Amino acid sequence: MAANDETIKVVFQPEGRTVRILPGTTVLEAGGKAGIIIETPCGGKGTCGKCRVKVATGAPQPTEADRKAFEPGKLAAGWRLACQCRLSKDAVVDVPGDVRRFKQKILVDGVKRDVKLNPTFRKVFVTVPEPTLSDPRCDVDRLKGCLAGAAPDATAQLPLIRALPRLLDLHDGAFTVVLENDDIVTIEKGDTSGSCHGIAVDIGTTSVVGMLVDLTTGEATCSASRMNPQVSRGDDVVSRLTYIRDNPNGLNELHDSIVECINDIIGELCEASGVPCGHIYELSAVGNTTMNHIFLNVDPQQVAQSPFAAVLREAVNVKAAELGVKINPLGNVYAGPNIAGFVGGDTVGVILATGMFSGDTNRLAIDIGTNGELVLATKDRVVSCSTAAGPAFEGARIRFGMRAAEGAIDKVIFNDTVHVTTIGNAPARGICGTGLIDAIAEMARTGVIDYTGRIVGSDEADRPDFLRRRVIERDSGNDFVLVESDRTHNGEQILLSQRDVREMQLAKGAIRAGIDIMLAELGLEAADIDAVYLAGAFGNFIRRSMAKRLGLLPDIPSDRIAFVGNAAGTGAKMVLAARELRAEAERISREVEYIELAGRPDFQEAFMTAMLFPA
Amino acid sequence: MAANDETIKVVFQPEGRTVRILPGTTVLEAGGKAGIIIETPCGGKGTCGKCRVKVATGAPQPTEADRKAFEPGKLAAGWRLACQCRLSKDAVVDVPGDVRRFKQKILVDGVKRDVKLNPTFRKVFVTVPEPTLSDPRCDVDRLKGCLAGAAPDATAQLPLIRALPRLLDLHDGAFTVVLENDDIVTIEKGDTSGSCHGIAVDIGTTSVVGMLVDLTTGEATCSASRMNPQVSRGDDVVSRLTYIRDNPNGLNELHDSIVECINDIIGELCEASGVPCGHIYELSAVGNTTMNHIFLNVDPQQVAQSPFAAVLREAVNVKAAELGVKINPLGNVYAGPNIAGFVGGDTVGVILATGMFSGDTNRLAIDIGTNGELVLATKDRVVSCSTAAGPAFEGARIRFGMRAAEGAIDKVIFNDTVHVTTIGNAPARGICGTGLIDAIAEMARTGVIDYTGRIVGSDEADRPDFLRRRVIERDSGNDFVLVESDRTHNGEQILLSQRDVREMQLAKGAIRAGIDIMLAELGLEAADIDAVYLAGAFGNFIRRSMAKRLGLLPDIPSDRIAFVGNAAGTGAKMVLAARELRAEAERISREVEYIELAGRPDFQEAFMTAMLFPA
Repeated sequence: MAANDETIKVVFQPEGRTVRILPGTTVLEAGGKAGIIIETPCGGKGTCGKCRVKVATGAPQPTEADRKAFEPGKLAAGWRLACQCRLSKDAVVDVPGDVRRFKQKILVDGVKRDVKLNPTFRKVFVTVPEPTLSDPRCDVDRLKGCLAGAAPDATAQLPLIRALPRLLDLHDGAFTVVLENDDIVTIEKGDTSGSCHGIAVDIGTTSVVGMLVDLTTGEATCSASRMNPQVSRGDDVVSRLTYIRDNPNGLNELHDSIVECINDIIGELCEASGVPCGHIYELSAVGNTTMNHIFLNVDPQQVAQSPFAAVLREAVNVKAAELGVKINPLGNVYAGPNIAGFVGGDTVGVILATGMFSGDTNRLAIDIGTNGELVLATKDRVVSCSTAAGPAFEGARIRFGMRAAEGAIDKVIFNDTVHVTTIGNAPARGICGTGLIDAIAEMARTGVIDYTGRIVGSDEADRPDFLRRRVIERDSGNDFVLVESDRTHNGEQILLSQRDVREMQLAKGAIRAGIDIMLAELGLEAADIDAVYLAGAFGNFIRRSMAKRLGLLPDIPSDRIAFVGNAAGTGAKMVLAARELRAEAERISREVEYIELAGRPDFQEAFMTAMLFPA
Repeated sequence: MAANDETIKVVFQPEGRTVRILPGTTVLEAGGKAGIIIETPCGGKGTCGKCRVKVATGAPQPTEADRKAFEPGKLAAGWRLACQCRLSKDAVVDVPGDVRRFKQKILVDGVKRDVKLNPTFRKVFVTVPEPTLSDPRCDVDRLKGCLAGAAPDATAQLPLIRALPRLLDLHDGAFTVVLENDDIVTIEKGDTSGSCHGIAVDIGTTSVVGMLVDLTTGEATCSASRMNPQVSRGDDVVSRLTYIRDNPNGLNELHDSIVECINDIIGELCEASGVPCGHIYELSAVGNTTMNHIFLNVDPQQVAQSPFAAVLREAVNVKAAELGVKINPLGNVYAGPNIAGFVGGDTVGVILATGMFSGDTNRLAIDIGTNGELVLATKDRVVSCSTAAGPAFEGARIRFGMRAAEGAIDKVIFNDTVHVTTIGNAPARGICGTGLIDAIAEMARTGVIDYTGRIVGSDEADRPDFLRRRVIERDSGNDFVLVESDRTHNGEQILLSQRDVREMQLAKGAIRAGIDIMLAELGLEAADIDAVYLAGAFGNFIRRSMAKRLGLLPDIPSDRIAFVGNAAGTGAKMVLAARELRAEAERISREVEYIELAGRPDFQEAFMTAMLFPA
């Protein structure tokens, strides 16, 4: 150490994480700097005696508090209270697992779960001793000995074993071990233990979202998204399945395109964060069952036909290199488990993120994307179903429909006139999902449409003139002028047609019928629902009052309705940070009941009723 | 079924094994025919009520004994006593695990162990149902459902999952599942569940022996052996290590040659047995640590230098295809664990086969091949060591030494003359290990050599003329004429030189010194040894009295000395038949203490003493 460098070096074991601190810093503070949080129930006053660490080398004289907390033998071995122990020279500190704070709160808007940070992949910096006549253990055993604290049951596979003698020689025994659970996956030069990352991906039918997750903290550090390139082969799941059925190379093509899309996202995340892609060790992906199968190159086409059976329900682990995903080639891809042919890992993610799988209240989750997946949980049973909500909410099949981009009408109010706001306050170009809900809810409220959804002719009913004037009567069904030509980007009117209203009725009717069937299945009424979680890119922008007025949601007090963001993606992130949650995901996958609406004799009736508008 | 076929078909579950029997045959007998042994403590009289099976379809009316043994609900479900239940039509019978007899005796000459048959690889014939609206489980779950009896925790990997929908379609759901532990490895057309094999290989420095093992019974069905082709690169372990050190491609070359040798043996076993190599799913290999490392292509060269540390101690599992071993490419190669650099998996095999790792008597195992490995077990500790016995016992470095082949002198007695017998009663060509031990033991007994091993000059001592005449005095040390020229294959005398005697003294001295050091380490004397196990190709032909006269063995009553055959190979076979024994092998590997003789200050003294001949 240079004479002008006043800092001292502290190595925390078993991670081997190293920090430099000024003399006089406590072990507690040094740990914090190294990202190792030591529990101090008493707040660091030296009174509770909980923050027990072993200063293996460089231990200072014991304090009074130390003498109270430890027997002489332990004091001699270097045991100290971390909050009282001020280091004055280079030190090596062992921090036992039971004094660490692993808890990490993963926040889902509206709900939160405590998760113990325990990722599948960990990194440990080691210094493997040379063999001697008194310690002639083999290379593998000496390496494992260094991992005894972090991974007492570490295992090594043959390729690593073969490389080990050369690696020990090359690096003088000092290097970073990458562990996947207890398996030694690879070895990296120097101390890279601070750089260990994962990526959580939500593969939607329309959009793909990726989050970079720091596996040493469990925090998401940045995110990126792309349109799912498969949209060129069909808007919705069924059209993708048809494409696969009708094209001999269709599955491979769609598989390659989603892998390429995910690799693009990985590239963007690496560039934005400065993390090398080789330091990303795991990718956790959720998606509906069809997206899951295509990503894994498993043929999903039988999902399109009754009885809609998938090939695969359970989670799959596969080497990144095998799937062509460009993280560390020895890294793992975890494709989360599905529930049924039309309820996939994204819904498992929602259930996981919201903690719906346990608890004793009645909770309803609605994840509206290109499909609408619904989950209803009680203390005894959790049921799920999928509705062909269709891409109406994403603007498809609506004459002036568009995605939520600049110029999209996102809010509509009828008072003395028809007020609309657009995204970016730009001249209106079309209407996105929330605008559509608003518009049709307002049309229903003001009698522009009757309870069956018919756009009523100009003279048929009593309505304010500003609304009456906007109805254009046609033989094929009337249109409603939402925006006059002088307020649009191209000088043409923006209309809602009778067909547009019908598309929306089909979509909202399907979701509402699903809700009603699930309630009936569990013997509940709408008033029994304690909480509603709205998830998904679209779900989070619905206005609760409008959704109720439309009849999309039952009449539930708005304060019971929470927005939970991209809960599917949050679920994917949680299983990266906490491997134990994979067992919960598997249980959810196995135990959540699936209701096949097509198989219910009461579905048609519920659907017809749900398409109508509430009085 | 053809009208003239009187037999009925019985399917035993969960294996799905099918047999055809005559009507009136009991389930017990049918099971026996299918290789499924049902326990009948009462001898099949219907009195003990133990042989409970469920005749799922085709159950006959319950007998009186059945009515006593089962409640009405169980009777209705088809539960019957196997010994009393005579089948009259096609039937499906579930045989629970707890009524099966799995015990299998693996015989090692002189010792025996009970082993429960439970191989890593199993095969189950299944018929996977089609999905329906009321059972829309995914393909993988429906397949697993069929395996619930045999492997409730079955798992499938992505390549199999990808192929599954096509396979289900192609075979109408009926095929044989190959399980490795709980992992579904592959699927085979039709019912191949009766053909499931493994191979146990003992990789010796000089000889390689393979045994084909029927994994449905645990029996070895045939064996084959080859010379280890590596002998062209050196007789013993150290010369192989030197070859690897001195030749950049040496390791690859030796690795390829042993894999090719093993593949030759596999080919011979398949040809002799008619078993297709694709029905061999596992190969278990033991060998000394250097052989083990070379087989796995792990560089062993550091074993040659102090502190003689290996790279690898633990067992390795590797896909057969990855190692180039020509069994089923998806099959597993299990390379048994080592103990130390010079005590390998072959010794673990000896300990496993002889059951030395547990028990409360004092037992000594001596496995003499190209090296001599020794194990001494007490109820508290088990110690091992390796001695550079050298290839003297195999004929190398002995002037007229040869392997135990036709014309080799294998037995020598001095009475009124020098009697020798040769293998095949052919004219003598040379002397093999047992002949050498005999000859030198007799020379010591009759004073041809003194206690230091010197061949005494013709006139130095009082000996019968027929012996005196045979000593040829030379400046460099005397020779002894073992066979006169008229009795040899080429008309030349067969001599034992002073150097030959010294070679034998070094070999036997090393082994005896090892025994003495181990005894001292455990505080025992020779008389405390309750049993001696002689193992290995050579060990099994030693004459006990001669070995004691030579001083190779301490003076222990001959009835305590047992020959245990190729115990290393038996160990390799046992871990094939019973996967639980792999955990015992791992414990042996970890817990048996290794004594590095080179590191013992008392070794030189013990060695010098042990080279002398007993009075």
